[in-house]
Parts: sequence; C-alpha cells; structure tokens
Amino acid sequence: MPAPIIILVRPQLGENIGAAARAMANFGLSELRLVAPRDGWPNKRARETSSGAESIIDSAKVFPDFSAAVADIQRAYATTARPRDMEKRVVTPDIAVREMGQLLKGCGDVEKWRGAENKESPSPPLSTSPHLKIALVFGPERTGLENEEIGWCDTLITIPTSPEHSSLNLAQSLVVVGYEWWKHAGAAPDPSAVPGNDILRPLPEVAPKVDWQGLFEQLESYLDETNYYRVEDKKPLMWQNLKNMLLRGQWSAQEIRSFRGMLRAIWERRVKNRD
Amino acid sequence: MPAPIIILVRPQLGENIGAAARAMANFGLSELRLVAPRDGWPNKRARETSSGAESIIDSAKVFPDFSAAVADIQRAYATTARPRDMEKRVVTPDIAVREMGQLLKGCGDVEKWRGAENKESPSPPLSTSPHLKIALVFGPERTGLENEEIGWCDTLITIPTSPEHSSLNLAQSLVVVGYEWWKHAGAAPDPSAVPGNDILRPLPEVAPKVDWQGLFEQLESYLDETNYYRVEDKKPLMWQNLKNMLLRGQWSAQEIRSFRGMLRAIWERRVKNRD
Repeated sequence: MPAPIIILVRPQLGENIGAAARAMANFGLSELRLVAPRDGWPNKRARETSSGAESIIDSAKVFPDFSAAVADIQRAYATTARPRDMEKRVVTPDIAVREMGQLLKGCGDVEKWRGAENKESPSPPLSTSPHLKIALVFGPERTGLENEEIGWCDTLITIPTSPEHSSLNLAQSLVVVGYEWWKHAGAAPDPSAVPGNDILRPLPEVAPKVDWQGLFEQLESYLDETNYYRVEDKKPLMWQNLKNMLLRGQWSAQEIRSFRGMLRAIWERRVKNRD
Repeated sequence: MPAPIIILVRPQLGENIGAAARAMANFGLSELRLVAPRDGWPNKRARETSSGAESIIDSAKVFPDFSAAVADIQRAYATTARPRDMEKRVVTPDIAVREMGQLLKGCGDVEKWRGAENKESPSPPLSTSPHLKIALVFGPERTGLENEEIGWCDTLITIPTSPEHSSLNLAQSLVVVGYEWWKHAGAAPDPSAVPGNDILRPLPEVAPKVDWQGLFEQLESYLDETNYYRVEDKKPLMWQNLKNMLLRGQWSAQEIRSFRGMLRAIWERRVKNRD
C-alpha cells in the first residue's frame, strides 16, 4: 500500500525531526523530505532521538526550498490553520487520511467526477502506481508555514483542539495525523466512502506541482508586464487568490499544457496588437 | 461536560509530565493525578514544560500508591498492551472515549443492561453527577504498569500502530487518546451508539474501586488462611484472574456489600465447623 510522503519545512530542532521520524514509524509512514533544515543535514541529534526509526532519517531527502520538495507531488495536505483571506478547503485528520487512502489506491468514481459532458471519452486505466504522490506538509516550529507555501497545498488539515489551548507541537501533530492514517488506511484500507469525496479528482489524472509551477511563472510574467495589479500592495493577496482558484481545478498535465498554450496565444496576440 | 481524570503512574521525567499536561489542555482534560512521581512533587521542570497548562500542573493531586489514586474511581481505562494470561476487555481509543462520553453523561440503556429479570425494580434517576469518576491510566515510561495495577483497570486501550514500531511515549499516547476524546465527546457529545456498549453498566450504579479494595482484602485473608492456593508460585496469577473475573461484573456498592456479607457468613460457619 503506498503511503503519503511527509514534508517537514524548515524544521529547527534535531530532536523534533527525530520524534517526527519515530511517529512516522509508529504509523507505517516511511518517506521523509526536509526543506532547508536549520541546522543542516545530516543531523546527529535527529538520528539519536529517532530511536528505532534511523532508516527513515538515513533515507530522508533534503530540498533547498518548498517548490523543489513538492515538484513531483500531485496533491498536498498541510497541517495548519487556514490563513485569513485565503480560500482553501479545510478538513479534519480523519477525512484527510481516508481521502488519501482512496486516492492512493487509484479508486474514486472517475465517471462521476468528470460529469456528464465528458461521457464519451474513455477512462484511463486506474491502478495503484508508484508514481502517485501525496504529501503531508508540516511547517517549522513556532512560525509555521508561510502563506505562499500554504497556497501550494490543495487542502488544509485542522486538528480539533480545545479553543483555549490549540497549539500542538510538530511531532504531536504528526502523531495525530499518522494515527488516523494507520487507523483508516495504513492498517486496513477503509472501504467506506468519504463524504464529499466526489469533489476530488482521481490522483492518476492530476498533474504534479511542477507543472503548476511552470504555468504560474508564465502567468506571473504576463501579469507583471501588463501591470495588471496597479496597486503593488495588493499584489501578493490577489496573486495568491488567483493561484488558489486555479489549483482548485485539479487539472491534469494535459489540461495545464492546453491552458498555457491558450495563455501564450492570447499574450502573443496582445503584443501583436500593440505593435 | 465532565471529563475523565488522567492518572500518571510513577512518571519519571518532569518534562514528560509537563508534555502530558499540555496535551490534556489541548483536548479539554483538566484533572491530573500523579502516583509517586519519581522526582517528587512539585517538579520545576514539569511546570516549565507544560507551557500554557500550568493550572493543570498546579492543581495536580499526588498519591502514594495506585490503590489510593483509584479509590473513588468507578471505571478505569489503562492505555497499555494486554498482559499474557490476563482476561481483560481491550478496545481502541475511539471506542473507549465514546464509552466514556456516554457513561459520564449518565446515559446508557439501564433497562436493557439489567435484563429482563430485574424489570420490576424501579430505575434510579440517572443524571450527570459530579461524583461520576472515570480514569484514564498511563504507566511509567519504559517499564509500564505492573500487572497488579492493570488488574484494577476495567478495560484496556490499545492504540493501533505498525507492528514493527509499536512503542509510543507517554505524551504521545495521551495525545492520541485525548484527541479522540475531544473529537468524540469533549467538543460535541457524540450521540452515536458504541457497538457493544450495552455490556457496560451505567456509571451511576457502579461501585468505586475503594469498595472493591475492601472486598478483595477480605477475600484474600480468607483464602490465605484456608491455604487455598497450595502452590505458592501459582498464587499471583490465580488471584489476579479471580479478581478480574469479579471486577468484570461491574457491581454496585450494594452488591459488593451483599457479597461481602455472604462471604463472611460462609467464612464464619466454616470456622465454627472446625471448632
């Protein structure tokens, strides 16, 4: 059974990385990615505190930045509170892991998802593939993920806690989500349908983030050149909202290519008209 | 909404007590009992690491031994693996917390529980009472609870984990069980019936452990005097099994009194016959 990849973004203390690796081992998760760990890598303290999960530490992959770490990921879940002004789907850990289990198994009702208008195109064969990649993203201790990084994630996970004491540390958040993963998907795949899961496109059809990165670079360069934003202050929020809106479409690689071609065509005509 | 009492048995490191208190605060649990904490009490390190949960640390009650800590408890759940040779009911955290929520609310189908034979006796009024006490028991780091202590608990909680990496530390176990508590009972009482919950007697009718302690002392003295065990080696296991068997009956205080009276009557007659 394939499992989600854990991405720790700019983790600070080695012992927190070690505790996170141990929690991963407890709940059947094995693939760890680290984005710019503060104290470099390898980290002796991380290995020492992972007690029993050294193989996870030893095979962890390090990335210089968030974009590189999610480039081949098709669907990312971030365990974080939703920032104000950001439109993102938010779910509880149990819903998230059941979705992940279903997506990684390649199931999901493709015909239903596609809707009536595409009925005539044949479905691609769906099977469990080693290339299906889902990430579970955790931000740095204290500061958490930046809004830009949250923007790259498709869905946010909020752990229900007492409103007066809502802060859980890194390893504890991982324990909760990992526990739910093992309970619903890791140990015995859960056949029960997730409410509202028909809004999730089956993973084999979803483009990895690197395709979106290409699209957004292209789009951003066009918008900057046309002075689309006018007020510079408003740009970050407007741009993030625009990206979120597009990401929500869960496009395939082919759809992103089509959209980029369309943008380019519009852009080139526009320049031509100006000449 | 009343909540379970957390009992940490012989905790070793102050920072683990602090982390446990913090996890309690995260999930709406506030009453902490400590049995013989290794480094004494109060413990500076425990308070420092509880960050935000100082009030739980400050109001924690300390007990010299396990028996004293559970004396007023009506139903105890221990988060531990089931020892070999011990007959105990084992449930997952989600089942356990849903039971606790239902028991603390004083609900449960009393008539169904009592069965047909008692139909004519009127039910006592059931209401949420501050005197209903459920405990969630956690053993010491590394060594865990002793079998004698496990024997005092009515039900064991096993957290599902990967079989190769099954050890969770104290605070992490508390995070998992606390999270389930908050999810099912603390935040919004869960009206869904727990499968098999009709085997649990409603808590208002269940005797606290101190009544059982009295019964077991009486019974043990009789059995020792009659040389019931013959082979001394076999006594601990036989005695534990006997206690477990009786505990499973979930007797009321009145039932324990009746049983003790019956035992005494039998005992006195026996002595009389010997004379």
